[in-house]
Amino acid sequence: MAANTISLSISSTAAASKNLHSLDSRGLIPPPTICFPFSSSKSIPGELSLSSTSISRSRMRAAGASQLMNEPANEKRSTTPPTIVEVDLGNRSYPIYIGAGLLDQSQLLQRHVHGKRVLVVTNERVAPLYLDKTVDALTRGNPNVSVESVILPDGEKYKDMDTLMKVFDKAIESRLDRRCTFVALGGGVIGDMCGYAAASYLRGVNFIQIPTTVMAQVDSSVGGKTGINHRLGKNMIGAFYQPQCVLVDTNTLNTLPDREMASGLAEVIKYGIIRDAEFFEWQEKNIEALLARDPAALAYAIKRSCENKADVVSQDERESGLRATLNLGHTFGHAIETGFGYGEWLHGEAVAAGTVMAVDMSYRLGWIDESIVERVNNILKRAKLPTTPPESMTVSMFKSIMAVSLWSK
Amino acid sequence: MAANTISLSISSTAAASKNLHSLDSRGLIPPPTICFPFSSSKSIPGELSLSSTSISRSRMRAAGASQLMNEPANEKRSTTPPTIVEVDLGNRSYPIYIGAGLLDQSQLLQRHVHGKRVLVVTNERVAPLYLDKTVDALTRGNPNVSVESVILPDGEKYKDMDTLMKVFDKAIESRLDRRCTFVALGGGVIGDMCGYAAASYLRGVNFIQIPTTVMAQVDSSVGGKTGINHRLGKNMIGAFYQPQCVLVDTNTLNTLPDREMASGLAEVIKYGIIRDAEFFEWQEKNIEALLARDPAALAYAIKRSCENKADVVSQDERESGLRATLNLGHTFGHAIETGFGYGEWLHGEAVAAGTVMAVDMSYRLGWIDESIVERVNNILKRAKLPTTPPESMTVSMFKSIMAVSLWSK
Repeated sequence: MAANTISLSISSTAAASKNLHSLDSRGLIPPPTICFPFSSSKSIPGELSLSSTSISRSRMRAAGASQLMNEPANEKRSTTPPTIVEVDLGNRSYPIYIGAGLLDQSQLLQRHVHGKRVLVVTNERVAPLYLDKTVDALTRGNPNVSVESVILPDGEKYKDMDTLMKVFDKAIESRLDRRCTFVALGGGVIGDMCGYAAASYLRGVNFIQIPTTVMAQVDSSVGGKTGINHRLGKNMIGAFYQPQCVLVDTNTLNTLPDREMASGLAEVIKYGIIRDAEFFEWQEKNIEALLARDPAALAYAIKRSCENKADVVSQDERESGLRATLNLGHTFGHAIETGFGYGEWLHGEAVAAGTVMAVDMSYRLGWIDESIVERVNNILKRAKLPTTPPESMTVSMFKSIMAVSLWSK
Repeated sequence: MAANTISLSISSTAAASKNLHSLDSRGLIPPPTICFPFSSSKSIPGELSLSSTSISRSRMRAAGASQLMNEPANEKRSTTPPTIVEVDLGNRSYPIYIGAGLLDQSQLLQRHVHGKRVLVVTNERVAPLYLDKTVDALTRGNPNVSVESVILPDGEKYKDMDTLMKVFDKAIESRLDRRCTFVALGGGVIGDMCGYAAASYLRGVNFIQIPTTVMAQVDSSVGGKTGINHRLGKNMIGAFYQPQCVLVDTNTLNTLPDREMASGLAEVIKYGIIRDAEFFEWQEKNIEALLARDPAALAYAIKRSCENKADVVSQDERESGLRATLNLGHTFGHAIETGFGYGEWLHGEAVAAGTVMAVDMSYRLGWIDESIVERVNNILKRAKLPTTPPESMTVSMFKSIMAVSLWSK
């Protein structure tokens, strides 16, 4: 069923509109500080109401050379200073390090390891690529640290309690105590599961995020949402639990499949739509460069996305209002993921189709004008993302699944 | 193997001594503010070093009649004001209400219910006794509140992930959203599981503790330790998560089996040993009255225990030091529970035997004198509690299980 022909009753979509509150200041329950960059009557770029200057520049800085002067003598690898985006959460604040080759800068990681015991949680696809490199980064010049690892099966369908128990099994068998550190090495599924395991193991141990997909680097690794799926709905069981740091080595994207790359861009595009018009315009000019993995374009898009995410999370850690704007496209999207079986569609693919549905609904409710619908459609298509839900997804399937996914937000 | 003949090597028991740090100011790593009431050289009652006056009286007060003036017009039941002990944790502070017949005072409970949807988590033994009464207390004069319930099998052996999932299943099937309230109605197992479910469901919902055993009323319902067991160790998976309130209706003890009553007294006695000499002396005079369920004696023992627990938890919520003193007898005790199969011995029975072992070890290390060993032995025996571990528990069993339970503290 094409998004532009879907006809859900107002009663079943009224709650869904919360994803769209930010789309226009005339939304039903507009969050207090959100202003969609494209109003229905003012879609001219020159009149966009929100520019990137609203992001606190103080939260972003390049690490000075002095921060890296303690590299061990045998550190022969690149030491290009990372870009740092701070997530400002009081005594739970932490840095996001962004840069090419950061896994070669062992001090970056080691300064955030608590205790001498580390458990790396990763999956069967990522382990052969980056596990040795990560263990090296954790232990180089620091022989007192010992590293265990647990390698989970890959995919959203394994983001469940049975798989989570494997992390606890490994931690207990390895006799890790409260002073250990868990490290999530992988995409969003690994980050969510490792984070929830860290939140729950011995009632809470430290953890570090090393996201290796665009999706995880720009979205899921930042902000402390952790958890697992239930057969009846996504992310129903979890915790708000912040990491010690997020380390984004953009070199890990060199091995990312094209489909995963596009999936991550759905979240990048989301930030442009919900709160950063200047970034959206930049994306309209550079989407092909992102798909082609132009290093400079990728680094900029990741940094800017993290700045947006950090800014929202700093204002509303536990999603009492503003943070819900980050769910644009996710209500329809989660229904697609759940209804189609976890893993059939990648998360970003479902979000892309869901975004078009949300934008289309906003248009039909009179909240935005047609030009916005077209721009959103166009950029998602250029990003090689689906813009309609699976043909087999019926209205009744959407209704029954969204009946869970809506109240559980 | 009798406690007084057990011979564990110093290397395997050194860590266990942390349970005993508080037993004497000459302990290896004494917590900064703890002083065992009976020093090895000063066991004369008149010279006890800690009296109950060290408990902040400001945290305990009787609720004035004004607090109960909003009772609904149809409230015909007893309205004796409860005793209130405050757990002082900043914006996570909460009251413990203690009194006979508090489940008949619906306003007490209703003022702490968030939202209009409630899930009562209870077990097969408690449900027939108190579920209807609890639902009535939640809904009387308040027809907008709807209550669901999930009835779990009874016993420590069901404090596991499979059983926990039944709580999530029920919550999701009932479409409970973030604004719901979970209510734990039962003993320590129910409180621990319901609390961890509340901490994890949709990344955290409100919950209320209604403990129905002495064990839960004086210890496990207070302080926010929640969680489940792993086959390799107790309480390995969980969260620090505080309730909105704890409601102790001492009338629920009228149906408590004698063995459960004695089990709870093990924790009451613990408070006397670790920090409240005056209370210990009172227990030595009143232990038979407690076993006979004298209402005044029980009410006093529960209040005084909660004051001690609240005082410790307020100073060290996440067990970075002082709170570990509450684990007296629990390192040996958990080994007994784990080694013997969860549920064979009640928790308090294992703690009682573990306390004797801990005290005996302290004596043999020269930290306390014999008179203390005798007083602890005597009061536990009078409370009908075991003072030696199961005969089938060998030293090697203790060693292998404590190797897990020690590092996981």
